Amino acid sequence: MNPDEALAGGLQELRRGTVVLASLLLLRAPGYGYALLEDLRGLGFPVDANTLYPLLRRLEAQGMLVSEWNTQEARPRKFYRISPAGERLAAELLAEWDRIDASVRRLGQGGSTS
Amino acid sequence: MNPDEALAGGLQELRRGTVVLASLLLLRAPGYGYALLEDLRGLGFPVDANTLYPLLRRLEAQGMLVSEWNTQEARPRKFYRISPAGERLAAELLAEWDRIDASVRRLGQGGSTS
Repeated sequence: MNPDEALAGGLQELRRGTVVLASLLLLRAPGYGYALLEDLRGLGFPVDANTLYPLLRRLEAQGMLVSEWNTQEARPRKFYRISPAGERLAAELLAEWDRIDASVRRLGQGGSTS
Repeated sequence: MNPDEALAGGLQELRRGTVVLASLLLLRAPGYGYALLEDLRGLGFPVDANTLYPLLRRLEAQGMLVSEWNTQEARPRKFYRISPAGERLAAELLAEWDRIDASVRRLGQGGSTS
């Protein structure tokens, strides 16, 4: 194991934790899987399809997203958007984000609890 | 699956991503595993020993932490502290944290990239 692996692993873990939250927030505008993947990547959340698509299905099964097939175009696509329950989840995750952010910044400034 | 599970899962993922960073920053002051566990919990990063102890050994193997046995007390304890390489890793993770935080906040305010 080397320092580059430590960095890559640490970065991946930081980013992975926010994929659910970022997906919920992005799907305030209806979107299909591949477009969401591109949006997430553009925002610096590298995620692959094998992770994102099951995540979308899970969030739908949990009632956090609703979906609809768009058959107007040549290729039918399943569009997801956030549900009211998903908005509540996003609000709670954002509140937790604020708490974590405050802790991380306090630590980053050299503070210690012990 | 229900909304509570979605919340619990989402919160756990958010927190888990920052355990490496928080551990590195806390170990600017030398500490042993159990004390670090308590500090992390106190800061709102619930992590269990089965996750943290292997993480500490991995960070040591990667050169991010150094350790020393303290045999002065009744029960010998392995104290970890951050290495110079660990400080560089922490600085890079903090910089990434800033980027992720900016993206999350932009999304949280209702912005969208599409």
